[in-house]
Amino acid sequence: MGRPADRDRPTRELTSLKNPFLKSLRRALAEGVTPEGWLAVEGPHLVDEALKATETATVRCIVFGQNVAAKLPSLVAGLPPDAARVQVPDRLFQKIAQTENSQGIAALVELRQPELEATLTVRDGLFLVACQLQDPGNLGTMVRSALALGATALIALAETVSPFNPKAVRSSAGAIFHLPAFTELKPSDLFPRLRACGVRTFAGDPRSPLDLSSADFRTAVAVLVGNEGAGLPVEISKQADQLVTIPIRPGTDSLNAATAAGIFLYEAARQRGFKY
Amino acid sequence: MGRPADRDRPTRELTSLKNPFLKSLRRALAEGVTPEGWLAVEGPHLVDEALKATETATVRCIVFGQNVAAKLPSLVAGLPPDAARVQVPDRLFQKIAQTENSQGIAALVELRQPELEATLTVRDGLFLVACQLQDPGNLGTMVRSALALGATALIALAETVSPFNPKAVRSSAGAIFHLPAFTELKPSDLFPRLRACGVRTFAGDPRSPLDLSSADFRTAVAVLVGNEGAGLPVEISKQADQLVTIPIRPGTDSLNAATAAGIFLYEAARQRGFKY
Repeated sequence: MGRPADRDRPTRELTSLKNPFLKSLRRALAEGVTPEGWLAVEGPHLVDEALKATETATVRCIVFGQNVAAKLPSLVAGLPPDAARVQVPDRLFQKIAQTENSQGIAALVELRQPELEATLTVRDGLFLVACQLQDPGNLGTMVRSALALGATALIALAETVSPFNPKAVRSSAGAIFHLPAFTELKPSDLFPRLRACGVRTFAGDPRSPLDLSSADFRTAVAVLVGNEGAGLPVEISKQADQLVTIPIRPGTDSLNAATAAGIFLYEAARQRGFKY
Repeated sequence: MGRPADRDRPTRELTSLKNPFLKSLRRALAEGVTPEGWLAVEGPHLVDEALKATETATVRCIVFGQNVAAKLPSLVAGLPPDAARVQVPDRLFQKIAQTENSQGIAALVELRQPELEATLTVRDGLFLVACQLQDPGNLGTMVRSALALGATALIALAETVSPFNPKAVRSSAGAIFHLPAFTELKPSDLFPRLRACGVRTFAGDPRSPLDLSSADFRTAVAVLVGNEGAGLPVEISKQADQLVTIPIRPGTDSLNAATAAGIFLYEAARQRGFKY
């Protein structure tokens, strides 16, 4: 359905790092988000994933190095015609990019944020609630698992690393463009809402006698996962409807937080007959 | 059972980076392994895990910075009396250490390597076979999951990152000191041995119609996990007895390799009633 290229918004060429747009782009690529709340991502894989997420994300701007210009149409197939296009010299792109894998292309992506209330009342919803997680790689890996294993949304409580952190976005392999993510929620705000919406809450707790294969994940459920080192804070886990454990070999330590989250989500998917 | 401290091997003090031992230690901490095959690890957590793994690992040497000397007895409780002890000035330790979390302590650890044949014939063994994995963090996370979820051993095929790589060791959270790990095996060597020992092989393959909850993990099984990007090479997966998939939401990409391995191991543990 692509419109002819000549109706596309014209490409701007920028050549100085002093340009205010490029300055702000560089900051956004380092921090992950622009002041207007758009994700700043780099590399052909993430840009492609953002373009494919047509129902949940809109690419507002692409920025590319000169040497990418020729193959641009294939890199950004499906780019909305009103998206801004900015070309910069390759040397300048290197200075703006934050990773070695950017390969001369970056994008600003607006995510469509659904309403929390509407999301929590989805029939048989499955929510992953991250509590005080610090490692963006772990959180991104969880977002990837959550999308693949049928979760409805990610909810990141306050004091949790942002799922829009550039490393989290990379670890999500683009899943963050598809999965609704709510951030900075206070427990005192979230838990009453979960209860009001009929969502039961399961907290991962190694001391619980209830193993997760015996817990019932077939109706609306929120899975609470804790910090890499300390696990869930007591004030969070005591709000949960059930404490649930992944039984591990006696004497062994624990699982990686992202692996544990993946196993919880898998168990839910299995009990639901892998119907997504 | 500790012997009195005065029977312990005396502490050597080394003060120059030109010292051949410190030179080789520095190289070993960067590469993960000494020429004699001992693991070189740093940080109180890993040193402690090595000391706790009395059945499978022996700490041969500890190296510590001056400022750690006073609290050394509590840091290395259980250190064999014949282990070498080397003290260096703090400034020198900083130059030898490869991470910011070393906190002034490092160790050389000899792993007891069981025989492959004896390991493969363990009753109802569960083996994780890593094929061409490149990310040491992913491999280390898999080792951690394998230990916690009851695997018998890790087998890393040729062209796979070493589980003794320093980043892999850190990601294993010390599990590598407990779990037998065989490396650099050729598929043409491994697969006939697995067959001869009655170990069935399951290969993760997204195109398989058989979901892993329908596969039978209750007898001796090896789970083959592939590369982060490309998955399992065809020449490996065609040697497997069964192709098995983790069913994911249609249209989504895939799971992180370590998460996928964790889910396979969890499914095996679940079917085995979490009896380790």
